[in-house]
Amino acid sequence: MSAKYPVALTRLIHHLMQLPGIGPKSAVRIAFHILNMPEQSVKDMAEVLIQARNNIAMCKLCSNLSEQEVCSICNDPNRNKNIICVVESPRDVNAIEATHEYNGLYHVLHGVISPLENVGPEELHVHELLERIDQETINEVIIATSPSVEGEATAMFLARLIKPLDIRVTRIAYGIPMGSDLETVDEITLGKALQGRREIL
Amino acid sequence: MSAKYPVALTRLIHHLMQLPGIGPKSAVRIAFHILNMPEQSVKDMAEVLIQARNNIAMCKLCSNLSEQEVCSICNDPNRNKNIICVVESPRDVNAIEATHEYNGLYHVLHGVISPLENVGPEELHVHELLERIDQETINEVIIATSPSVEGEATAMFLARLIKPLDIRVTRIAYGIPMGSDLETVDEITLGKALQGRREIL
Repeated sequence: MSAKYPVALTRLIHHLMQLPGIGPKSAVRIAFHILNMPEQSVKDMAEVLIQARNNIAMCKLCSNLSEQEVCSICNDPNRNKNIICVVESPRDVNAIEATHEYNGLYHVLHGVISPLENVGPEELHVHELLERIDQETINEVIIATSPSVEGEATAMFLARLIKPLDIRVTRIAYGIPMGSDLETVDEITLGKALQGRREIL
Repeated sequence: MSAKYPVALTRLIHHLMQLPGIGPKSAVRIAFHILNMPEQSVKDMAEVLIQARNNIAMCKLCSNLSEQEVCSICNDPNRNKNIICVVESPRDVNAIEATHEYNGLYHVLHGVISPLENVGPEELHVHELLERIDQETINEVIIATSPSVEGEATAMFLARLIKPLDIRVTRIAYGIPMGSDLETVDEITLGKALQGRREIL
């Protein structure tokens, strides 16, 4: 495909194609865009790549991404320190933060239990979660893993570990997404929405 | 959206969003992929970016991208040096090379005449084309700009310049794309396909 492009360009295209969601055509398009960018912008972009990779580590408390040892959420004196929301990934933290509905702490597992992919609880940040529950005063653990098979299994696993410690364990609600049509929602979600019905006050 | 991500990550996401075809969601996805890449791979990618931007220049003859002063096509002793195919961009060179149907030289205009975007013949590599025609022995100039309004105008403009020099000027054929249905082809293309009909031998 790119046999006739200069070597440096072919190499760039191949590197771009390794990124998620970038196929051969987008890679070529992006590569040409980069060739036409000012030299300084390309240098900046290269620098930003390296900086991001090198400077971002995990918060030693909640395992969320952080440039400091402890992340800005764990460090925030205005957050409720008695409640932990357990999520799969840092992206989920962001999604929940965007709702402005939650003011507690987080704990990022960095994955879900998935026997098919050889991911057990040891591969996740479960040990750190139990340590926090042991050392901090936690009243409630909200499990906000995805409603997938693996997410559900992980939620069950965690609930069985944490409930015996006499801590309230909750799961985010399943139901109809706002603004959707009943017709277009799958039966399992609709069933869960019926089971989870609440009285109108 | 990314208010709660570490600064270095937010910066990376913003840089990625400046690339063509990368929206906020893809940028986040790619950024997380980069965070999980081995440190050396990220360094390599940054290096490749800079290398591509710095090492690739234009062939001094045909204006195609090249790492050398003269590109590999202009330098190839097996190519027919009496015919030039004029294209809009280096990508078009690649597209034509992929057909294995053409063995002549190229000339890359780096754009098309577009009064709306303030691109006149002076902004394109037209002068260099006329110089080549003057200095080399050229029998035919194939104009392979796109069949868009601008591409057509550019083709007409070039034809009027070159024909008086007693050189054969041709335009690539318009017609039905292979494998398509007559029904799904627009009327203008179908009209052009009828006009351009050829006898079956």
